[in-house]
Amino acid sequence: MSTPIDFYFDFSSPYGYLASEKIDALAAKYGRTVNWKPILLGAVFKVSGMAPLTEVPLKGVYSKIDFLRSARYHGVPYRQPDAFPISTVNASRAFLWAEEKDAAKAKALAHALYRAYFHHNVNISETDTVLRLCGEVGLSIDEARTAIGDQRIKDKLRIAVEGAIARGVFGSPFIFVDNEPFWGVDRFDQIERWLKTGGF
Amino acid sequence: MSTPIDFYFDFSSPYGYLASEKIDALAAKYGRTVNWKPILLGAVFKVSGMAPLTEVPLKGVYSKIDFLRSARYHGVPYRQPDAFPISTVNASRAFLWAEEKDAAKAKALAHALYRAYFHHNVNISETDTVLRLCGEVGLSIDEARTAIGDQRIKDKLRIAVEGAIARGVFGSPFIFVDNEPFWGVDRFDQIERWLKTGGF
Repeated sequence: MSTPIDFYFDFSSPYGYLASEKIDALAAKYGRTVNWKPILLGAVFKVSGMAPLTEVPLKGVYSKIDFLRSARYHGVPYRQPDAFPISTVNASRAFLWAEEKDAAKAKALAHALYRAYFHHNVNISETDTVLRLCGEVGLSIDEARTAIGDQRIKDKLRIAVEGAIARGVFGSPFIFVDNEPFWGVDRFDQIERWLKTGGF
Repeated sequence: MSTPIDFYFDFSSPYGYLASEKIDALAAKYGRTVNWKPILLGAVFKVSGMAPLTEVPLKGVYSKIDFLRSARYHGVPYRQPDAFPISTVNASRAFLWAEEKDAAKAKALAHALYRAYFHHNVNISETDTVLRLCGEVGLSIDEARTAIGDQRIKDKLRIAVEGAIARGVFGSPFIFVDNEPFWGVDRFDQIERWLKTGGF
């Protein structure tokens, strides 16, 4: 009966990573599933006029403190990547392709990508890195290589990002529960109350 | 022994208002007092390049949902003011003057200003409104009128804002506990853990 939770995220988003480690368990606690929806914040920022957190004067300094402290608060391993932010086009295309093949492997790929980047300091913007991680979760590296360059997959990602923007998504993580929008891993307490009470 | 918590806020900030209703109780629970420090976000935004939440494309729509929902979540009465955002120069100057006269009345004035604006839809940018509220909390309206125009008080506010920026403050509420910075009423859970554990 309950509709799935829509979870929008960018693979280069620290708070998206923290959310990725928490959202399935939170949803499952209330009998929900989660649709994972990678987006490209670069495209979103062109509409909103916003900029990557670490590039905003004053806010940038604070952000790096808050990434680490929020990770400790949520009990998630975190290391600020040396390359930040990065392009997540390849990672997002690989995910959309993987999802068509095998939903469980796609989710495993998403976790592998996020953990490689935010825990092991691996630059996941590079095609070879994305392909290696595809292989590690049991997906075909050759098929993944083809998919990343496939116009159909490129279009699918572009349309997904446009759809997210049309729905009002302007950051990562961005979560819809029954069409109610929640921005940020720091809204998980409100999400939980919403799931528990059916809205407040 | 414990140092006071520094609480920076703008009188036109919705999340600052929510924080204002919570911070003294939270601090008292851990044996702390709170220094209330009004700032002017307009001056801060000139440095950060940021803009009022409601004026950012996409984010503006979400913000108005989140103000109301966050208020319900925290159990604080809230009504989105018709005039928003507004200048808080007069309110801030009145507070700084009041604080020199009587700390308890200054805090009562701060609550009166915030509640007038975010609960009763009163435009607190107007001098007469600020003076009326000064009177309601037992301060001299005539002295308050003089103070708002007093160059010494003007300079005090300007220096306070510059000091906040120099310390890295870029939003409201912005809270320091033992020099650890926390931005947003949605960091109150982390602030509480910090107070409880002495840092994490």
